[in-house]
Amino acid sequence: MADSASSRPLTRDSVLEAHGIIKPFIHRTPVVTNSTLSALASTSREPKDLESTPWAGRDPAKPKIRLWFKCENLQRVGAFKIRGAFHAIERLKREPDWVEGGGMQKGVATHSSGNHAQALALAARTAGIPAHIVMPNTTSPLKKAATAGYGANVSFCGNTAPEREAAAAKVVSETGARLVPPYDHPDILLGQGTVGLELQEQVLEDLPSGLNAIMAPIGGGGLLSGVALSCEGTGIQVFGAEPSDQDADDCKRGFEAGKRIESVSTMTVAEGLRTPVGEIPWSIIYERRLVRDIFTVSDQEIIKATQLLMERAKLYVEPSAAVPLAVALYNEDFRKMVEAEGGEAGWDLGLVLTGGNVATQDLGNLFSSLL
Amino acid sequence: MADSASSRPLTRDSVLEAHGIIKPFIHRTPVVTNSTLSALASTSREPKDLESTPWAGRDPAKPKIRLWFKCENLQRVGAFKIRGAFHAIERLKREPDWVEGGGMQKGVATHSSGNHAQALALAARTAGIPAHIVMPNTTSPLKKAATAGYGANVSFCGNTAPEREAAAAKVVSETGARLVPPYDHPDILLGQGTVGLELQEQVLEDLPSGLNAIMAPIGGGGLLSGVALSCEGTGIQVFGAEPSDQDADDCKRGFEAGKRIESVSTMTVAEGLRTPVGEIPWSIIYERRLVRDIFTVSDQEIIKATQLLMERAKLYVEPSAAVPLAVALYNEDFRKMVEAEGGEAGWDLGLVLTGGNVATQDLGNLFSSLL
Repeated sequence: MADSASSRPLTRDSVLEAHGIIKPFIHRTPVVTNSTLSALASTSREPKDLESTPWAGRDPAKPKIRLWFKCENLQRVGAFKIRGAFHAIERLKREPDWVEGGGMQKGVATHSSGNHAQALALAARTAGIPAHIVMPNTTSPLKKAATAGYGANVSFCGNTAPEREAAAAKVVSETGARLVPPYDHPDILLGQGTVGLELQEQVLEDLPSGLNAIMAPIGGGGLLSGVALSCEGTGIQVFGAEPSDQDADDCKRGFEAGKRIESVSTMTVAEGLRTPVGEIPWSIIYERRLVRDIFTVSDQEIIKATQLLMERAKLYVEPSAAVPLAVALYNEDFRKMVEAEGGEAGWDLGLVLTGGNVATQDLGNLFSSLL
Repeated sequence: MADSASSRPLTRDSVLEAHGIIKPFIHRTPVVTNSTLSALASTSREPKDLESTPWAGRDPAKPKIRLWFKCENLQRVGAFKIRGAFHAIERLKREPDWVEGGGMQKGVATHSSGNHAQALALAARTAGIPAHIVMPNTTSPLKKAATAGYGANVSFCGNTAPEREAAAAKVVSETGARLVPPYDHPDILLGQGTVGLELQEQVLEDLPSGLNAIMAPIGGGGLLSGVALSCEGTGIQVFGAEPSDQDADDCKRGFEAGKRIESVSTMTVAEGLRTPVGEIPWSIIYERRLVRDIFTVSDQEIIKATQLLMERAKLYVEPSAAVPLAVALYNEDFRKMVEAEGGEAGWDLGLVLTGGNVATQDLGNLFSSLL
């Protein structure tokens, strides 16, 4: 991972270059379709289903939507995050100053309770360098064990942002390791963008006209901004999908206000999306207008979409991964737009299933909270 | 589905012929590997893990096992059962007496609480003929809805075998529909055997030496006997995997006694495997010696294997589907055998993941029962 200032330009070509670099290390995850879910997305909701929503009293939309799922739950470490982690480390290995300064011995560091921790641990082990990972005390035992299982030096800290940052800074000053942030860095988002390239290519194998649009979840924005770069100049539209409960919709609100929201405090069920959008992702998503719009859904809708992906498509996904499907099924603004613009032909819509790291022990609570 | 007496001979060639017939109607489901699970299968258990097992005090086995999973959870209707159902109906359509007797109008019938009900309903709808399905009152709402959703005429009955058979007989006498049993018929087991053919072919694409063995769950035996036929003459060994709790191990006991056990009463968590082995499957599995042995595992081991498939491989499976993995991980007799016969090179072992039809609402109970 180069210093931000000396990184590759934020362009589609740089995403292609990143893909060339990380291809040997990642899975080319499958793209799947599911006739039941596409039929459901193409069925109008009942007026009574809209009663307790912002669209009460409106005519339900009648979109035609064919869904294409990019299964990053089947990616290594169970999430797309491995793409950015491998790209960051491969770039570091190509940085003469870092190598000459003993970087390979000092290694890398980060703070994360989630998929980035496991991803960086595996990428570092593959490169033969140490990884120092600070995890909040509240991290699930499954994720602690997985991260340690990849050979990382794991330490623990309090759960607030300042506590986490202080603990990571301490590790960096003690070890000389390079801090690899989870999303707010060019090498990270260029790596994540490779998922958009693959999705485009894989759909073209079956559908010569290609996708009309891609939708991805938005948390810190590394994935969404990378996917947006991967689509620049292709004519494929890009949308973000975000949880709305407990003010988790910071990107949507920022979009509407024309200004990035810099902090967010939420316990949305979409655990991976509890962060504010980072500065660099925001510059791509909003300032360069590479993402057309952001759509939001409630936690109940996210859980229902998670349930459908498991029960109907047999895809084991974490709730964050189900947010774009929830938008396609339940957000009437999105659905009206597809109806109006897609017309009779409808849209071929790519959705990124971001990961599958949810403990079976948590599923009981998750699904029993469905009303 | 021809009358048993006039069906194709029970040979590998007949399985190949069945495959040619049903190919247009089914998915060629993926075969996946998972390095974490193969590593786990190739790691010796701790002596203390064996303490409460039949192998207490023995040296843990040291097998080398590379696992290949055939993902029939991603099959249409979420289970391999669609193969036998399509084969049965396509054979019926080729039976002049049945067609001339108005068979296409009278349709087909069965009694089932599980995947066979949904499979027959979809196969009948595809052929444009009626399906009459008798389901026990205790059937889960998800399965009732799915079966009705495929356009079947669903009626309900009590839960005992005599009540179910009487209700099905009544439907047959009232409608003139042809009874399509779930496993004890040549056309059904020849259809199920196609899963074994595909697994062999798909592994050969990546591994020119092919599989050493295939293991499949044993309930009524349609799948296991079909897979055994698909392997006849190939040198690939075939094993059955069965739950042991509450006398569910009827096939194992029959194997040891040299006589088929004709009835079984069990509430094993592997819901799909609560039936005794059928006569025709038994003739292949035991009398023709096409299955080398049957291995059993406890419900706790089945639930642990289900958990591993979900959490590690991100494969959404029902507990019945996890029984072969449980054997590979936890049955020391099986593992000792692989150690002795596979030696340093180890074995490439194909496992059939039979289905993914489990309601998310049931997962809480399932996993909270893990000790």
